[in-house]
Amino acid sequence: MSQLQLHNSLSRKKELFEPRTEGFVGMYVCGPTVYNDVHLGNCRTFVNFDVIYRFLIHKGYKVRYVRNITDVGHLLDDGEDRIAKGARLDKLEPMEVVQKYTNGFHDMMSIFNTIPPSIEPHATGHIIEQIQMVQDILDNGWGYEVNGSVYFDVQKFDSENEGVYGMLSGRKLEDLLSETRDNLKNQSEKRNPTDFAIWMKASPEHIMRWPSPWSDGFPGWHLECSAMSTKYLGKEFDIHGGGGDLKFPHHENEIAQNVGACGCSPAKYWLHANMLLMNGRKMSKSDGNTIDPPQLFSGESEHISKAYAPMAVKFFMLQSHYRST
Amino acid sequence: MSQLQLHNSLSRKKELFEPRTEGFVGMYVCGPTVYNDVHLGNCRTFVNFDVIYRFLIHKGYKVRYVRNITDVGHLLDDGEDRIAKGARLDKLEPMEVVQKYTNGFHDMMSIFNTIPPSIEPHATGHIIEQIQMVQDILDNGWGYEVNGSVYFDVQKFDSENEGVYGMLSGRKLEDLLSETRDNLKNQSEKRNPTDFAIWMKASPEHIMRWPSPWSDGFPGWHLECSAMSTKYLGKEFDIHGGGGDLKFPHHENEIAQNVGACGCSPAKYWLHANMLLMNGRKMSKSDGNTIDPPQLFSGESEHISKAYAPMAVKFFMLQSHYRST
Repeated sequence: MSQLQLHNSLSRKKELFEPRTEGFVGMYVCGPTVYNDVHLGNCRTFVNFDVIYRFLIHKGYKVRYVRNITDVGHLLDDGEDRIAKGARLDKLEPMEVVQKYTNGFHDMMSIFNTIPPSIEPHATGHIIEQIQMVQDILDNGWGYEVNGSVYFDVQKFDSENEGVYGMLSGRKLEDLLSETRDNLKNQSEKRNPTDFAIWMKASPEHIMRWPSPWSDGFPGWHLECSAMSTKYLGKEFDIHGGGGDLKFPHHENEIAQNVGACGCSPAKYWLHANMLLMNGRKMSKSDGNTIDPPQLFSGESEHISKAYAPMAVKFFMLQSHYRST
Repeated sequence: MSQLQLHNSLSRKKELFEPRTEGFVGMYVCGPTVYNDVHLGNCRTFVNFDVIYRFLIHKGYKVRYVRNITDVGHLLDDGEDRIAKGARLDKLEPMEVVQKYTNGFHDMMSIFNTIPPSIEPHATGHIIEQIQMVQDILDNGWGYEVNGSVYFDVQKFDSENEGVYGMLSGRKLEDLLSETRDNLKNQSEKRNPTDFAIWMKASPEHIMRWPSPWSDGFPGWHLECSAMSTKYLGKEFDIHGGGGDLKFPHHENEIAQNVGACGCSPAKYWLHANMLLMNGRKMSKSDGNTIDPPQLFSGESEHISKAYAPMAVKFFMLQSHYRST
């Protein structure tokens, strides 16, 4: 039987796949944010990792495939009851939005005939684990608290863990520091512009919030994947995947968090699916250069002249290597 | 347009339905425990509440329908790594079991053509809210802690809130006390046999566990519905439903917890679907007196001579009033 070779974003070369434990594979893939309809580029990423998942099963591995749902949202309360005091049911409930788009995402994954992951953990379902990881990062000296928010101290971490920050994306901290403009939110609370939030104090109008040792707030976006991959696959596992646009800052910060909290880099192999282009340009809503999956299936778009069946779209996607555009 | 009348288990009579807020309905239905395949009786309950949900929408109400997933499990670690130290992927992971049966449940609900609820919260996703509710019950004097577990003090609660405990099931505390045998787990920790756990300290082999002010442990079973209905529908909402077998102790204890933590009884109308009988007896696995939905659809069961289409089964279920057997 042929051996499996994977292009590892960490080493930037093709490597022979050797799992950490003979016969078993732990794979984590960054899943969708469920505050709008899944777009075609995301579908391509998940279709690609479905092929990798099926291939690993075909090779005889027992695979635990974890793909998260990012459901910590940034919806704001409008500050008034629209009908009457107590008309709670007319208020925006983020989890109602989450449920709608999670259902839509599952339907689309089913239309593309992908196998559901072994575990599909929700970010809101793992707040305790994320708080614990923030605490571990603080205890290890890589974080600091300001006004109820906690930041990861990238510069201190980089100076004492040479070569870790930037190992995936190839970026150097000096370059990042000179690039970064000072227009980020809460910039004034950070010691350095490259630091990133691991816990955010919620403003009064922020709806989703949980108690923590630092404030009523919510976890930083990068944290959920570190906490949930550690919980379900262990501190060190085999494959971490996602769309290529997640390499920096999301995955770079994920590695920093894992090293900062657990003392080790999480995944042996990092796989990144490339972007979906339309007419040579990245699909982008702001350019009007986009087709939603339902438009593709119905043919109702100015960009196409006929409808395409989901399996035809999937076949077309798979004509291209996952690392190609 | 005809008005809606509902049989309210609280008053034991048919009442005109009047929502708390004009035009809006908040409805909570106890969902499945996802540690095995959904059985036909559960399907009947959810099909019945789907009809009620559709009818409320048809009447023009804006409905928020919350149906939970009970995924806090009682799986035990076997205490050894089967392959080698570090072979974490070969260990039982409760959330992998949960995902499998949650997917199966959703598939079955889709086969029966039911509308997904507005929000489907998981018990494991609301541990913080449950810990807060235990704390509120303790602060209000209705609970006590013993060796890291916390119990609801039913006798004290009953003596100071006359007529609340038993208001739904019609049971009297004196009768319950004389009925209860002393063979329950952790019986020795309880002040009275009718007291129930709201937080349980986890034994070392218990896999699912979270930190709390009292112990590393897990919430009592009744607590999740109190915490999640309060979070998504408010302290007081319109309709609470479930299978008739949940009336006692589950729903009775839920009311006690809500009154104990929030000072009010949660639902205005309590609706209970009756049991599914087969040949006049309750379906029961131990009697071999059961048909699973896939057997019914395939005809592969000693109890039936042919296969039935899902919509035929649904039509048959709906021939009978939801309060009938």
